[in-house]
Amino acid sequence: MQMDDMILVSIDDHMIEPPDMYKNHVPAKWQDAVPKVVKNANGVDEWHFQGSATSTPFGMAATVGWPREEWGFNPGSYSELRPGCFDVHERVRDMNANGVLAQMNFPTMAGFNARTFTESEDKEIALVMLRGYNDWAIDEWAAAYPGRFIPQGIVPMWDVDRAVEEVHRLGKKGCRSISFPETPHVQGFPSFLSGHWDPVLQAICDENMVLSLHIGAGFEVIRRPQEAPIDHLMVLATQISAITAQDLLFGPTLRRFPALRVALSEGGIGWVPFYLERIDRHFTNQTWLHGGEDFGGKLPSEVFREHFLVCYISDPSGLELRHRIGIDIIAWECDYPHTDTTWPESPEFAWKELQDAGCADEDVHKITWQNACRFFDWDPFAHTPREQATVGALRALATDVDTTRMSRTEWKARNEAAGIGVV
Amino acid sequence: MQMDDMILVSIDDHMIEPPDMYKNHVPAKWQDAVPKVVKNANGVDEWHFQGSATSTPFGMAATVGWPREEWGFNPGSYSELRPGCFDVHERVRDMNANGVLAQMNFPTMAGFNARTFTESEDKEIALVMLRGYNDWAIDEWAAAYPGRFIPQGIVPMWDVDRAVEEVHRLGKKGCRSISFPETPHVQGFPSFLSGHWDPVLQAICDENMVLSLHIGAGFEVIRRPQEAPIDHLMVLATQISAITAQDLLFGPTLRRFPALRVALSEGGIGWVPFYLERIDRHFTNQTWLHGGEDFGGKLPSEVFREHFLVCYISDPSGLELRHRIGIDIIAWECDYPHTDTTWPESPEFAWKELQDAGCADEDVHKITWQNACRFFDWDPFAHTPREQATVGALRALATDVDTTRMSRTEWKARNEAAGIGVV
Repeated sequence: MQMDDMILVSIDDHMIEPPDMYKNHVPAKWQDAVPKVVKNANGVDEWHFQGSATSTPFGMAATVGWPREEWGFNPGSYSELRPGCFDVHERVRDMNANGVLAQMNFPTMAGFNARTFTESEDKEIALVMLRGYNDWAIDEWAAAYPGRFIPQGIVPMWDVDRAVEEVHRLGKKGCRSISFPETPHVQGFPSFLSGHWDPVLQAICDENMVLSLHIGAGFEVIRRPQEAPIDHLMVLATQISAITAQDLLFGPTLRRFPALRVALSEGGIGWVPFYLERIDRHFTNQTWLHGGEDFGGKLPSEVFREHFLVCYISDPSGLELRHRIGIDIIAWECDYPHTDTTWPESPEFAWKELQDAGCADEDVHKITWQNACRFFDWDPFAHTPREQATVGALRALATDVDTTRMSRTEWKARNEAAGIGVV
Repeated sequence: MQMDDMILVSIDDHMIEPPDMYKNHVPAKWQDAVPKVVKNANGVDEWHFQGSATSTPFGMAATVGWPREEWGFNPGSYSELRPGCFDVHERVRDMNANGVLAQMNFPTMAGFNARTFTESEDKEIALVMLRGYNDWAIDEWAAAYPGRFIPQGIVPMWDVDRAVEEVHRLGKKGCRSISFPETPHVQGFPSFLSGHWDPVLQAICDENMVLSLHIGAGFEVIRRPQEAPIDHLMVLATQISAITAQDLLFGPTLRRFPALRVALSEGGIGWVPFYLERIDRHFTNQTWLHGGEDFGGKLPSEVFREHFLVCYISDPSGLELRHRIGIDIIAWECDYPHTDTTWPESPEFAWKELQDAGCADEDVHKITWQNACRFFDWDPFAHTPREQATVGALRALATDVDTTRMSRTEWKARNEAAGIGVV
């Protein structure tokens, strides 16, 4: 097996919703109320919803085309972005150039977990717009290229009954995953342990979907010093995946829902062996706390492996210890268009780490596509024959894609000249 | 090399202060004000200080002699404990039976970080008692058996000037370490990043001592769900060591004090490779945040290895990845008399893990004593010739030590009949 023989399915990437996303997905009577992109006095494109600016989905969320020195939290305009951020046709060309067969996208304007709608005042309108987002993400973005996107949706966090309905509605249209906050209790919601979310989790199981918990949403779970630099957020985000796993595993959730599948999106994998050894030693040592049947006669690590998919972008230690983690629960990610993405050299980057760790071909296939496809119950070859799904075959389609990093100024000049991303 | 050839120096164990600890260490005029052990109506031995019960140092803190089913947070009496918990002569016999040459102890009644004194009202008296604790710990407990204990002290957290004085006073009597809270900002103190503690850290450097940050003190750094079971505290405690390292490494502390040495006591080691890879990738990827000189031209992982000693009781994954951690910064621990201790089979337990990980003899020596002795600048053979310091030699001195676990009731009957631990 060579690098070009790999098949890459990434279950963690992001779309920057385009300004016209609501055109086809909200009834006419609500069109005035849809979130709109407005250019402010400083030339920054802001999303406005229910009377206030809700997000400027640029800066750190869409750095893929820029040199590192230009990264930062400073907002900008659509025209400064690499068009693959918000244009699905360009996205697929960028996927081809990177040898990626398929990806699953998380929202930006809408918030990983529908935050924009949860924080808005009029919840009737918010629900319409949340559904509109889901319809756009699934029926327009993902459906534009069958077989290239694993459809994912969000649910109204403010109303469990409506959330259950939305899960079922999404299930009917082939959605494979719900993006949900990793530690809802730090965002003012009841915790996973409370039982409050059980109807939603039941619906997700009933629809055979995955609960995807992306890092970042739960950052406030760590009380950091007031003087902490921004590095803390970026470095420690993956520590929270272990805390999330603990909430689900030692709370009642996973035992209550034996069919629940949880992806710890962008959580990394190198912490897993240490965590699994610790929980097993804890369980077998602190017998005064646990009857032997607490985990159905299993070790907590076994229950972990039955429920979780752990996901990484770069993780040499985790790959070296892949058999301590479980070779069937590891999935690779691309994270386009965020700062941590390895685009456009993902095949080179992933292949080197896999080879350095001594992965057999079988391990490579499990990690780069088989585990993800099994976990999300998604057939990668339904629309693309296997021989056309490889890194080499996809890259052969994209020899004309220019992957050069360019300054924001240069993107703006080029895009505006071509009428791209102009608000 | 065989198991019996190992030399074991543990830098994380605990003493249960005996009721008469203040007899020789507080001037006569303060004797009425010393913390005292009082048996309450339920037969529980409580420490009383400044008019209130401050701690009952039993239950989970001294389970070493009990069967697992009897562990728990329920307090009890001194007479229920294995005498090695509070009697230094019995402690050394228990160390011999376990093949342990030397150990460093953390306080119980006093709190890992002088909490009992910090929370008391009269700070003049509190300072007298804190110093009395230090004098007892160093001049009485540790001095009773030269070469068997690495002396450690605590400082008055409520007054930086007094803390600096205490560090210097302790330095003069050969103290090697200060026990300090891992995340002071969650306990109402200024953070490490604030600069508030810099005079104390400078004094620790000036006295060539180690800053020992034991897990547990900082648990509130994690906002856990209100329904979280007690398992969370036990399992997640080591996740906080990574957060502590982050505070010190990405805050100004370690760069401001190039000579500062920090032991992450009981923090585990299996999380370290993942953390080091993540901080190096963060540093080299997020160049917009950092000039190349932020870590003096080094990678953050290199600075980590210059300052930290990482410590473990049981850690198969961490040992397998020891060269990714740094073979010179790993130290083994015993944790007597807490629930996680491997006593009295520590040699068997440690040897098996070291051999399973494929450690060469040289690695074994580094991990079991050389790294700790270098880091704490403490000569293990000053009082014990090397050939008498091994597991085999020490165990040969202790063939009469009965290591059987017994119920609390049985300990009470035996101890009270012998007049041991009677309050």
